[in-house]
Amino acid sequence: MTDMLQHKKLAIIGLGLIGGSVARGLAGKIEGLEITGIGRNLEILEQAVADGAIDHCSTDIAEGCRQADLVLIAVPSLTVEKVLAALKPVMTPDMVVTDAASVKGAIIDAVHRVFGHMPPNFVPGHPIAGSEHSGYEASFPELYQRKKVILTPMSETDSLAADLVRSLWEALGAEVLDMSVDHHDAVLAATSHLPHLLAYALVDTLSQQGASEEIFRYAAGGFRDFTRIASSDPQMWHDIFMANGSATVQVLDKYIDNLQRLKKAILEQDSEELMTTFTRAKKSRDKFLEQFSAGGKPPDNTTSDR
Amino acid sequence: MTDMLQHKKLAIIGLGLIGGSVARGLAGKIEGLEITGIGRNLEILEQAVADGAIDHCSTDIAEGCRQADLVLIAVPSLTVEKVLAALKPVMTPDMVVTDAASVKGAIIDAVHRVFGHMPPNFVPGHPIAGSEHSGYEASFPELYQRKKVILTPMSETDSLAADLVRSLWEALGAEVLDMSVDHHDAVLAATSHLPHLLAYALVDTLSQQGASEEIFRYAAGGFRDFTRIASSDPQMWHDIFMANGSATVQVLDKYIDNLQRLKKAILEQDSEELMTTFTRAKKSRDKFLEQFSAGGKPPDNTTSDR
Repeated sequence: MTDMLQHKKLAIIGLGLIGGSVARGLAGKIEGLEITGIGRNLEILEQAVADGAIDHCSTDIAEGCRQADLVLIAVPSLTVEKVLAALKPVMTPDMVVTDAASVKGAIIDAVHRVFGHMPPNFVPGHPIAGSEHSGYEASFPELYQRKKVILTPMSETDSLAADLVRSLWEALGAEVLDMSVDHHDAVLAATSHLPHLLAYALVDTLSQQGASEEIFRYAAGGFRDFTRIASSDPQMWHDIFMANGSATVQVLDKYIDNLQRLKKAILEQDSEELMTTFTRAKKSRDKFLEQFSAGGKPPDNTTSDR
Repeated sequence: MTDMLQHKKLAIIGLGLIGGSVARGLAGKIEGLEITGIGRNLEILEQAVADGAIDHCSTDIAEGCRQADLVLIAVPSLTVEKVLAALKPVMTPDMVVTDAASVKGAIIDAVHRVFGHMPPNFVPGHPIAGSEHSGYEASFPELYQRKKVILTPMSETDSLAADLVRSLWEALGAEVLDMSVDHHDAVLAATSHLPHLLAYALVDTLSQQGASEEIFRYAAGGFRDFTRIASSDPQMWHDIFMANGSATVQVLDKYIDNLQRLKKAILEQDSEELMTTFTRAKKSRDKFLEQFSAGGKPPDNTTSDR
């Protein structure tokens, strides 16, 4: 299906880790595909042109997207609305527009606010891939290989538009799946957004302790891996929690309840409760790992999916 | 100082990941060092002899430790007391005894219960190294290279005894440091015990959700790394939380308070609070990583330190 991209004009708004990796992954691979990168930082855009990641660049959204066949919005979740407003004047019914934000409900709301309805040529999407490193300099062509991309097409969404977006991610080596908006936001809250919150909170709690430098000195590999995602971009994660607050809080409440139960078990020296919980968790985690490995292990620098 | 080990008899009680890695790391490296492995599983002991990791083996503690110069107790924390009681009849004033448990207060208490006092030849110790894999089959000679080992010598402890234990860990490539018992238990509760509890709790919370299989299907690399330590040995971690409950609960309470604060910030869409926290955490974590990397990156399979 990747021949759908041939001789098309692709505009990528936001040339950070996500947008930059799409550009690098497609550049020179699809016959006649022309890529325009749009961003605020001209120096980075010119670097991307020099790298051969993009063919053209612009710091102006309307200018950069005029006559595009496909527009990918790859900016932090809360910036999507502003981008849509800037895109609106040049958006034609033939232009397919998609986004890469980690939350979908808030994006749908933003689309409604900007357009007054859901345009059939807008396809909400989310590549489950990322890294704790951010920016164009951290981007790389293999980021989406063997990763999952979730599209949440609406009843209004044109199926040909969805197919074009699907072909974009498939060309990058990803597996594309459809899901409902609410389900997407709940699943991602549990598997990605909550763990990031927990990691930020742990590092923050320890850094607020007395003698935190000394504490970190004795932290080792387990701590390093557990907290890796706390090195992720604060702005991106701020946006995600602002945009997916209610789903995140729902699973966070369950998590806090579980911590309180374990705390009680520790205080009461409830041996059985601790053994049962740890054994059950290990079993689930080992099972997850089997499934995960069966799907192919991603390179180590691509593992802070959003 | 590693020549202190020459022509000594070392007995290792418990030939799992910790004890097995000590044996493999020393075997054939120190002139005249004789290693006896003591465990419950004769098959594993014989395998270790066949591997050349140990010279002799026994399933009987008293028999295996008779005439040993140095005894390393490498069993789960709550089993140490039983081991000490079995060792007591053959323990001479010249025999140096140390342990490798991740908690020290509970071990000191056990020593007092068994001996009625703190024998000068007992040196409490804790190698901060491990893996989410357990058992002799997971052990390997490099486990302690560039790792920290904390000794918590008491006022009663003989300094020559402590030197011999130090030489053991240094021969394995570790850096040996002294610390007070309470300080050790508080630092480890924060950097190791709490993160393990949080990882177990996360996997457990999600596995108790409806459609947990589907949730895990969309979990990716960030989740995998965050929860790696939840694949650790349930028995070992059960023992650690039973033995270091009060220090763990103290930092767990602070952590839960921090989660409640973040939950409030999410619910109130308190943009500034979220940005401040995430930025502060990222800064701390990046700084930790710099220090950690400066100390040398351990192999990936050695990173679930206890």
